[in-house]
Amino acid sequence: MKANSYEIVKTYMGRIPYDSDLLEQINSFCIENNIKCGMANIIGAVKQAKIGYYSQYKQSYKTLEGENLTGGLEIVSCTGNISIKDSKSFAHLHIILSNSEGIAFGGHLMPGTIVYAGEFIIQEFKGPDLVRSIDETTKLPLWTL
Amino acid sequence: MKANSYEIVKTYMGRIPYDSDLLEQINSFCIENNIKCGMANIIGAVKQAKIGYYSQYKQSYKTLEGENLTGGLEIVSCTGNISIKDSKSFAHLHIILSNSEGIAFGGHLMPGTIVYAGEFIIQEFKGPDLVRSIDETTKLPLWTL
Amino acid sequence: MKANSYEIVKTYMGRIPYDSDLLEQINSFCIENNIKCGMANIIGAVKQAKIGYYSQYKQSYKTLEGENLTGGLEIVSCTGNISIKDSKSFAHLHIILSNSEGIAFGGHLMPGTIVYAGEFIIQEFKGPDLVRSIDETTKLPLWTL
Repeated sequence: MKANSYEIVKTYMGRIPYDSDLLEQINSFCIENNIKCGMANIIGAVKQAKIGYYSQYKQSYKTLEGENLTGGLEIVSCTGNISIKDSKSFAHLHIILSNSEGIAFGGHLMPGTIVYAGEFIIQEFKGPDLVRSIDETTKLPLWTL
Repeated sequence: MKANSYEIVKTYMGRIPYDSDLLEQINSFCIENNIKCGMANIIGAVKQAKIGYYSQYKQSYKTLEGENLTGGLEIVSCTGNISIKDSKSFAHLHIILSNSEGIAFGGHLMPGTIVYAGEFIIQEFKGPDLVRSIDETTKLPLWTL
Repeated sequence: MKANSYEIVKTYMGRIPYDSDLLEQINSFCIENNIKCGMANIIGAVKQAKIGYYSQYKQSYKTLEGENLTGGLEIVSCTGNISIKDSKSFAHLHIILSNSEGIAFGGHLMPGTIVYAGEFIIQEFKGPDLVRSIDETTKLPLWTL
């Protein structure tokens, strides 16, 4: 298993605005604060969500939205990493949402997930850049290590 | 997006007693150890759970318990933050539980979730206090930043 | 609540190979890098999963696999801790997977969960060893503190 080693520089803790796009907010924050590498954790609630499932057969993302992902949901987990894609800071986040019955839905966080209330923790790491490029086997943008 | 910046002071790793209340244990630990700001991660199992769903329409919590949340469940994720509410250390945690068929249920962790076995990691942050007060838009106790 | 206190030594961020066993990879990495204590977070996707549910009545693990856990799933959360068991570094991880409809399944990560793409963050802690031995009440390998 290939890995880089990092030191934690700084930990940010803050609030994601009401009615904003969750993924866009995290990406913008990382770009503005020059966070090239790190870890993110978010809890809160969304008005609606848009998430992806990667079909390993078609090697493309299926988008899930509507029905199960509207009407207000808790963000019960939203976790992932920050690295470099297309020369920019890029957050790769997976999210789990729960509805009024507690039923949980999860997937790859996509733009279109609208925040009701959001609390994030981002840890910034110092060390070698991790850069994404298309992996031949999976056709996913993975790290070259 | 508004945020404060922190340094990690200390990381605690330990065990939550059998038959204790998960949320109360975490809150007591933070108060006893004077942890005013931080991050928590817990895995383990519960005898039964009590979780909340925040209705964005009614702007109040609906409590979920019984049926799906008894009979022994895995804590597959329990994550969140520590900050100040009512002048005390306060853990805001979201939890995901899974049953004997692997089905996942999630929500806002409430008192009444009884530990079977629990392992926690709490990271304590040093920096500006984050204080909760009622947010006008959502009626939730959010951070003033 | 009993706990030890730690400092973060190092943070590793890396990739889990295609077609490898998720749990075995994390355990091997910890052993090779002499990580005796720490925290792990993984996102990605698996070809198939094998997870456990601990029956509190029978005090034994039920294994879940097949049907709901094949056909390609997102790793929407995989989190836990690293400590010592049988004199070796040992990762205790709980995982949540989601399928093509976004439905989430969770449990205790077992060998037999095969990676499609995996991105991990492991934080290494410095401090007292945490050692697992069988707990009388639960019959689980818990920390002696």
